[in-house]
Amino acid sequence: MRALSHYQTLISNYLSELHLTKEPKNLYEPIEYILLLGGKRMRPVLTLMATEVFDVDCTKALAAATAVEVFHNFSLVHDDIMDEAPLRRGNETVHEKWNINTGILSGDAMLILAYQHFEAYEPKIFRELAKLFSKTALEVCEGQQYDVDFETRDDVTIPEYLKMIEYKTAVLVGAAMKMGAIVAETSEENANLIYAFGLNLGIAFQLQDDYLDAFGNPETFGKQVGGDIIENKKTYLYLKALEFGTRDNKEQLLHLFSIKPSDNSEKIDSVKALFTKTGASKATQKAIQEYTFKAFEKLDLMTISEEKKAVLKTFGENLMNRNV
Amino acid sequence: MRALSHYQTLISNYLSELHLTKEPKNLYEPIEYILLLGGKRMRPVLTLMATEVFDVDCTKALAAATAVEVFHNFSLVHDDIMDEAPLRRGNETVHEKWNINTGILSGDAMLILAYQHFEAYEPKIFRELAKLFSKTALEVCEGQQYDVDFETRDDVTIPEYLKMIEYKTAVLVGAAMKMGAIVAETSEENANLIYAFGLNLGIAFQLQDDYLDAFGNPETFGKQVGGDIIENKKTYLYLKALEFGTRDNKEQLLHLFSIKPSDNSEKIDSVKALFTKTGASKATQKAIQEYTFKAFEKLDLMTISEEKKAVLKTFGENLMNRNV
Repeated sequence: MRALSHYQTLISNYLSELHLTKEPKNLYEPIEYILLLGGKRMRPVLTLMATEVFDVDCTKALAAATAVEVFHNFSLVHDDIMDEAPLRRGNETVHEKWNINTGILSGDAMLILAYQHFEAYEPKIFRELAKLFSKTALEVCEGQQYDVDFETRDDVTIPEYLKMIEYKTAVLVGAAMKMGAIVAETSEENANLIYAFGLNLGIAFQLQDDYLDAFGNPETFGKQVGGDIIENKKTYLYLKALEFGTRDNKEQLLHLFSIKPSDNSEKIDSVKALFTKTGASKATQKAIQEYTFKAFEKLDLMTISEEKKAVLKTFGENLMNRNV
Repeated sequence: MRALSHYQTLISNYLSELHLTKEPKNLYEPIEYILLLGGKRMRPVLTLMATEVFDVDCTKALAAATAVEVFHNFSLVHDDIMDEAPLRRGNETVHEKWNINTGILSGDAMLILAYQHFEAYEPKIFRELAKLFSKTALEVCEGQQYDVDFETRDDVTIPEYLKMIEYKTAVLVGAAMKMGAIVAETSEENANLIYAFGLNLGIAFQLQDDYLDAFGNPETFGKQVGGDIIENKKTYLYLKALEFGTRDNKEQLLHLFSIKPSDNSEKIDSVKALFTKTGASKATQKAIQEYTFKAFEKLDLMTISEEKKAVLKTFGENLMNRNV
């Protein structure tokens, strides 16, 4: 199995050769800025890996992989405006460094630029890629809207929450992998299976993100532990605690999620105790395992060599162990 | 020649059957709202007309025409946020009726929905349409950025201004017509000529808009006469007046464009007098005629019947006489 850094380097090189220093500068400089801020490039790496799994040279998928990365960054630019986020990857967000109008317009241009990368492929592949891309991009918008809607709703159900994280996060992981399959021109069945692998792994990863936000190791978890609790975010843990808790637990949790104390440490400890006591913590761990297992099941059904299956399984395990 | 209303009805019917009452409501209701606000549907009408000019049933182009209209409305939603415009077609703008975040996200979804309409076509046509669409959409973003940049610049040249209106407005008119040519599968030469026809007519129309904004009849011009002068907008008239005027004229104009009086009638009269005195008014009329003539020249070069040429010429004349 190739090292992850092999794929990351391919993508970084491809991105840096895009010649984004075009006119008008105020449109293209923010695009170059956000694209070169880095990040782990996990989605485009998955596109390249998927292509190789089907025995095709992964450089053939660089354009499609780049479309995925440009789209992902588009969604970050617009989401950061909506969330009024000042920082992204430790640097100023686009709307903060420039202004909101620049964030809107440069984001729009990125969405179009993403589509343009598919022009590297001949008509049949182009149409398949763009069609999958449009469906996925629309679902990401729907997921973002559900997330916004949930902030002001107090009757969000677990299936609704799962649909939200599926749309907002997981479909793009599935689509990134399926694009590799499309470029490799494998069977439709394999393409759908690798999509399902990515989708389920994406849901598992997002649920684990919810879990680690409360119970993760501050030394290794990338974000501030307890961040979701501070922001009263209705995560899987929270919804499960409301479902399983006694009337008393529920009242306590609702109260804790209605306050914004200046010192959050006591609030975080109380909420975490409730997550554990109600069984929400265990239920979340169980759900993570189930979705990871579902992903690996899809892998087994694919008509590729055991060796190739092992590559994807190892990647999935490393991802879930947060070793990548 | 068919009546314009024939095409408009086809488009209205197609739009009303799009089933935009999907979930999440907060994403799709604003889209349905702006799309059903109306407008003259001039761009999609041109797509349908272009298809018929090449002897193909125009209903075959309804999906492409709709993509153009959905994109145009996407650009209105995002531009209205950037311009802080409260009204659109006499009704509340999306960000005013809902909020800015809804305007951003619903706009994003519209840009994706526009691409999805091309999925009605087989791969070769799909790729051609989407490629032209991406190029055009990106130019529209660039045009919008130039327009924003020009607000704070005092050294805008006439060629720069012409490029701005070409990108912001005219390329979409050209592309709308070329899409009809692509759907009709006419020769590449005809497709490029009808693009050039639309492009030049679009520039002529936009220059005429500048002219009528100052010298139009308040009874028949859709917008407030003098609006550009009130907003100190650097139009073709303004730039030509600065070019042609004496030092004295220039100083007066710069002063008038630095003030925002509570009663604008005196300012409007003084600016209009300068536009006339400097010859800017005449120069603008001349430019309008030249671009209109250039459009008709392209028409002559097309390999279609004289009868079909007459259809497009009549349409162009009606458009420039503001009879449509």
